[in-house]
This record gives sequence, structure tokens and C-alpha cells, in this order.
Amino acid sequence: MVSDSRTHAGVDYIASFRKMCTWTAADRVICLLSAGNLGTSQSVVNLLQQRQDEGVLAVSSMFDLAALLGSTLREVSLRDEQVAQQNPHVDFSCSFLLGGQIAGGDMRLYNIYPQGNFIESTPETPYLQIGESKYGKPILDRVIRYDIPLMQAAKCVLVSFDSTLRSNLSVGMPLDLLLYRRDSLKVGLQARLDEGDLYLSHLRQSWSSGLRQLFMTIPDPPWSI
Amino acid sequence: MVSDSRTHAGVDYIASFRKMCTWTAADRVICLLSAGNLGTSQSVVNLLQQRQDEGVLAVSSMFDLAALLGSTLREVSLRDEQVAQQNPHVDFSCSFLLGGQIAGGDMRLYNIYPQGNFIESTPETPYLQIGESKYGKPILDRVIRYDIPLMQAAKCVLVSFDSTLRSNLSVGMPLDLLLYRRDSLKVGLQARLDEGDLYLSHLRQSWSSGLRQLFMTIPDPPWSI
Repeated sequence: MVSDSRTHAGVDYIASFRKMCTWTAADRVICLLSAGNLGTSQSVVNLLQQRQDEGVLAVSSMFDLAALLGSTLREVSLRDEQVAQQNPHVDFSCSFLLGGQIAGGDMRLYNIYPQGNFIESTPETPYLQIGESKYGKPILDRVIRYDIPLMQAAKCVLVSFDSTLRSNLSVGMPLDLLLYRRDSLKVGLQARLDEGDLYLSHLRQSWSSGLRQLFMTIPDPPWSI
Repeated sequence: MVSDSRTHAGVDYIASFRKMCTWTAADRVICLLSAGNLGTSQSVVNLLQQRQDEGVLAVSSMFDLAALLGSTLREVSLRDEQVAQQNPHVDFSCSFLLGGQIAGGDMRLYNIYPQGNFIESTPETPYLQIGESKYGKPILDRVIRYDIPLMQAAKCVLVSFDSTLRSNLSVGMPLDLLLYRRDSLKVGLQARLDEGDLYLSHLRQSWSSGLRQLFMTIPDPPWSI
């Protein structure tokens, strides 16, 4: 799972905020990413945090946790309903990616919609995105398969973020990354990748020059005008 | 200039419509692309067509034509204002790309916004997009420069459309393409590229396999978990 950390990309107000949040215990690894209105998503995360002993750390399945996240999101939306109606031009909505595993169940990945309902990743839908997702989608569509090795998947999501970072100011470094291996029940790797990260800068340079090279090797159209 | 021809990609109603429209005369070549509500854009194009002898074929500069297009768009928006207010969930807006040259002036390219105002392409903004533009933007950002040779630009816009076609159902073949060489005052090439077009299918295959190959040549992350 990978998230950027740009929360508002106005001209004179560029702020950075961690959009990845994790809970771990002996029997579970939970990772949550958020997109959209930061007021809404922070409230949801704080409520989950405050109530974690009866919630995130207590539920017995990822499905129940997705439902809990959805209902907490609805609770916050209801709290802010009136102010949202008074400010129709402000988008108070947010969405979440919830991934992880709880002992006794399989590894799961959910997309929780602003309405609080959710869908799950399946072999036919092997990845999920939230937020500014379109720029980075083509490379995911070309590369990601349900059985892709973990390190290739990690490389692909970084390439996907690279496209988005280059084309859209509202997405910004650093990137937060979490890798989890099925049934390990512990975080495989959690890292914050900034401009100085050696692997990431090598990846971005190689991808960029490789793309331009590939473009030049494909013959120009045969049309003479 | 390139446009797709998908107008509505619902499950049981996929329609195809030409979104490129051209006007030519001894002293001018004009090319218009539209995106957005088809009822609005067709009305605008029909009005321009009906009044072409006093409008598109009569104005003496591309700038005046962009302003005329903007005011015609405002005229149609005003006509439909009431029905738009009665149907707040329907988007009646549309936007246009207007490119071409009129003798005595330089080649120009404009983006006409739904509000009827417009911006022009410049050396710093060497390409413009309307409609479902995000999927195809990264490759344009990497390749397109103000002084890129025409055939490379044509190749790049086709690669850009390929990414969009693969990632989004609301964009569909065939593609309409128009090439124009500065100061020629005649259409260089106008073609409809469908699934069977040899160059386009070769391009799509080479790009797809080249991308996967490039992806595999870049080292996986060095993390061991």
C-alpha cells in the first residue's frame, strides 16, 4: 500500500500530511489510507484510534472492520451534515483503502466509499485506488495481475505514483509505503520515501529515460504530408 | 488534433459520434473538437455551420473565431438555462479545442471553457486537452515540446489515446485525426483510424510490449522482507 502526503496544493499553501495509518497486534496487521476531505478523514481515524480496544484491535474479521470503518465514516458525515449543507461548494467527502489480515481470516483489501459502503479487491480487480487516481491507472492496468510477485507490485505502484507526481500538483512527495506478506501477521516493511531515496530516484530516472527511448524506437507514422 | 468517438458508454447504450469538425477555404483551415454534453456541443456546431458565411468563414483571425465560439456557446447555455436548473444532476456543459490558421495570422490553438472564455496554447503549454484527459496526460508531459516534429507529435497523441482507451470505457475507437502544417493553409491529412488501422495497431502493440519490457528491465526494490 502506498500513499502520497500532499493535502492541499494551493499556490501559497502546500501542506504535507501522512495519509497512512497502521494498527498492529500479535494477531493482526491493519493499514488504512485516506483520500478526500482531511477534516472528515482525520475525525474518522481519531474515533477509530480512541475506540481501538473495542474496535480495530477487537473485531474478529477484516470484513467486520470494513463495516465498522463505514459506519464511523457515516457517523462523522452525520455530525457534519448541517455544515456541509450550508457549504455546498466544499466537498466534505472522503474515502479509504483498508488492507490487512486478522488471524483466522485471509488477507483482504477494501475500498470504502464516501457513503460508507465498500467493495473488496478480487482476482479480477487485483488493485484499488482512491484520490487522484487516473494519471497512474494505465500502468497498473498493464502490469498488475492477481499473482504478481510482491516486489514487482511495489515497483509498479511507485511507477504509477511517478506518473501522477509529474502530471498533477495535488499529489506530492514523500510517499508512505507498507509491504505485507500474506499470513506473516507482521509488517514486512514500512518506509517513508522522499526525494532523496536512492531506489525511488533511480526508478524515476530509469522509467523516464526508458519511456522516451521506447517512444523514439517506435516508428513515426508513415504519412507524408 | 485527435478525438475519439465515444459519446455515452453506458452498459447497454454505447454510441459513436464524430467529435471533430472542420471548415476549410482558400485562406483558412479550422478544426474543432468537442467534449462534454452532446446536446450542447451539437447545437453550437450547428449554429456555427448555419451562420458560417458571416462567422467561421468570414472572421479575419483565429482569436476572433475563438471569441465567436465562446459567445455561441454562451447563447446555447442561455437557451438551455431553465432546463439545466430543473435538472441539477445532468451536466449540460461542454468544452472545445479550436485549432487552425487564417491567412495573415499565425497558426493558433485554443481551449474554450464551458463558460465561454478561453485560453491559448503557448510555448510553455505546448498541448491542450479536453474531456477524459488524465489517463493520457503523463506521456504528453514527458514527450511533447513546443518544437517537437509533427510526426512525433502525432505518434505521441496516439500513444496518449491508447492509455486512455485501455483504462476508461468512456473513450472509444475510432479516432479522428487531423494533421496541419503551419502556413500550408490546407489540411495535411485527415483520417479516421479504427481497430483495423495497421499503423495504430502496430503502435499499440509495440507500446504495450515495450512498456512491459521496460518495466521488467528496471530492478525490483532491494528490500528483503
